[in-house]
Amino acid sequence: MGGPLAVSPLAPEAFPDLPEIAGVTFATTAAGVRYSGRTDVMLATLAPGSAIAGVFTRSATRSAPVLDCQAKLGGATDAGAAILVNSGNSNAFTGRAGVEAVTAITHAVAQRLDLPVERVFTSSTGVIGEPLPHARITSVLETLAANLAPEGAADAAKTIMTTDTYPKGASQTVDVDGRQVRIAGIAKGSGMIAPDMATMLVYIFTDARMDQSALQDLTSGVADRTFNRITVDSDTSTSDSLLVAATGASGVDVDGHAGFAKALETLMLDLAHQVVRDGEGATKFVEITVSGAANDTDAKTHAMSIANSPLVKTAIAGEDPNWGRVVMAVGKSGAAADRDRLSIRFGDVLVAENGWVHPNYTEADAAAHMKGEHIRIGVDLGLGTAEVTVWTCDLTHGYIDINADYRS
Amino acid sequence: MGGPLAVSPLAPEAFPDLPEIAGVTFATTAAGVRYSGRTDVMLATLAPGSAIAGVFTRSATRSAPVLDCQAKLGGATDAGAAILVNSGNSNAFTGRAGVEAVTAITHAVAQRLDLPVERVFTSSTGVIGEPLPHARITSVLETLAANLAPEGAADAAKTIMTTDTYPKGASQTVDVDGRQVRIAGIAKGSGMIAPDMATMLVYIFTDARMDQSALQDLTSGVADRTFNRITVDSDTSTSDSLLVAATGASGVDVDGHAGFAKALETLMLDLAHQVVRDGEGATKFVEITVSGAANDTDAKTHAMSIANSPLVKTAIAGEDPNWGRVVMAVGKSGAAADRDRLSIRFGDVLVAENGWVHPNYTEADAAAHMKGEHIRIGVDLGLGTAEVTVWTCDLTHGYIDINADYRS
Repeated sequence: MGGPLAVSPLAPEAFPDLPEIAGVTFATTAAGVRYSGRTDVMLATLAPGSAIAGVFTRSATRSAPVLDCQAKLGGATDAGAAILVNSGNSNAFTGRAGVEAVTAITHAVAQRLDLPVERVFTSSTGVIGEPLPHARITSVLETLAANLAPEGAADAAKTIMTTDTYPKGASQTVDVDGRQVRIAGIAKGSGMIAPDMATMLVYIFTDARMDQSALQDLTSGVADRTFNRITVDSDTSTSDSLLVAATGASGVDVDGHAGFAKALETLMLDLAHQVVRDGEGATKFVEITVSGAANDTDAKTHAMSIANSPLVKTAIAGEDPNWGRVVMAVGKSGAAADRDRLSIRFGDVLVAENGWVHPNYTEADAAAHMKGEHIRIGVDLGLGTAEVTVWTCDLTHGYIDINADYRS
Repeated sequence: MGGPLAVSPLAPEAFPDLPEIAGVTFATTAAGVRYSGRTDVMLATLAPGSAIAGVFTRSATRSAPVLDCQAKLGGATDAGAAILVNSGNSNAFTGRAGVEAVTAITHAVAQRLDLPVERVFTSSTGVIGEPLPHARITSVLETLAANLAPEGAADAAKTIMTTDTYPKGASQTVDVDGRQVRIAGIAKGSGMIAPDMATMLVYIFTDARMDQSALQDLTSGVADRTFNRITVDSDTSTSDSLLVAATGASGVDVDGHAGFAKALETLMLDLAHQVVRDGEGATKFVEITVSGAANDTDAKTHAMSIANSPLVKTAIAGEDPNWGRVVMAVGKSGAAADRDRLSIRFGDVLVAENGWVHPNYTEADAAAHMKGEHIRIGVDLGLGTAEVTVWTCDLTHGYIDINADYRS
């Protein structure tokens, strides 16, 4: 890998000020897993009684740490818990050595923190197919344990970055019958980002109290409407993991609380958008809404077909309101569409209606919208009432630069 | 669009010497549909009795000429027939005006050549969503008719080009019980090339005699094993059309003749490879073989997932034997795979076996293969006996250059 990548032009102005979450502590350190001169291992601990929900990649070649997390979810919550994450090496496609590395790390963490090993979750992100040098990680456990503190979320967000050009975090505070609960989350992800799977690496913490299975149901549903509606390059990671931990330390029960569910969705959508805004080589943030569909599945299939089309994405990079390519992407998606009922908008500009260019359309209007940083493409199928929005970025020389060289 | 594109480094040394096909004549001219300074309309005529088979895009937004061709296939073959093709404008997503343009052109050709309109087929390729200026085409019909001659296939191949950097043609001669039949074909295609549909624009002519429905069955089956196994960018055209015409002028019946079927498949695979070799921005010709699959569908799904992965394609552009991205693409495809039975080869180099890097693997060996122009990636799933090969090209800065500017 070459020098550090320039920060995405779509990056937020600053990392947000994340609140401390009662029942959660963080520590980070540099273990030299692959990178030098930066932190690459984070440890988070969760108070006894924390509920933990997770959503993971559905890849058939998912990594050893993903399989280990999936096996552990849904167990007893009375003990404390820990999450350890390293960047630089994904421990994916590493055969028996991959399983051994997960076992070595989880057992060492369990022993050091006096936790059952079933409550120790790990993730690894980075190069695929190289053995994870797990001794480098277990040898820094003492340092990590000595430095655990409630305020380390920002450092944790930096520690889990790979080709990310900025750390990603978001928070929400929810009023529940006059008492406050807090949610804070961090994420990483920039390339190998695709739909229909869980997500990249995302860790969300709240001091709210929620039953384990209710938290899992809520998390799965919200993931489908947030992380599963973004795409950078249609390529799906072997390591995607989302963990949501509810420590209950606020003493406030949020089972079935609509305000909490909405706050969690807002936070997850915020993190998902931050991942898209850091899409490899991205210069435009693109919002694609397909309405008038027969059902949600069709709407999402069309929207993702547009969002993953290299021809649509390169046209956006070129600031070209090339709506013919949108028509093409709808046509190829396989979901129901009637050419002669299609309407297309770029921003607020009605480009085409009922299968042909609108008589009042002028390319100058649409071209003005394309010069902005936030591009909105609307397609109405004219077949029903379902509507889905997905988010992506453009496809630029920057993507080629990063991926023709970087070994990820 | 800027100046002419540089010829692909993967182009054949020269356009092949196509034989004349008894019963077929060609003419080309410059009608100024969109381009200037080049020919953009071709007309081919077929002798009475010619059987015509076709395969077309399955896009839901397919163009007016595609719909017209589909409606006409399978009719009576006693009359002569004609094929008219223009480049520069695809007459796709043009509503009622699109149908009117097809009607105007097909009726004018039928009248001028004294053919039933049901035997006049048209194709259009180029920009989507602009009305086709059909009067420019009908006004050159007299010129075209006056210049019809058996030897014009090479000029026809040039006339139908859009972002193609070279014309594409291929021929075969088949011995049938001591008598010879000839097959000649031309094609265009460079971007918006994707699987599971028919193809780009392809016209194949033979003087063999074959029953209409037998020719259709043969053509559909061969298209599935040739044009439907290539991809440049996963984007599927609204205009893809393949027509195969058998004039019967040789007097040689080839119904059920294995040698003829094999020759047709060889010719179609040759043209399909020429399209990939002219993939927008291509610098590597990539052959991906997935073996050991439970069935052909799974093998093709995995192979196309690898072939369409932007991360695999950029790694190839960077001459990086990044087999971790091949694992990722297998994992995301949705077809059956067992991580711990996977084997991967780059060229003849065994990279990984049974789910992990092979102990004898050295990156230098695989890197040497990646420096070549013809890249071979082999994946054995270890699950069954099915095997499918697909072909694609790499993803380079050239693709971004062409598609962030060119309005296609």
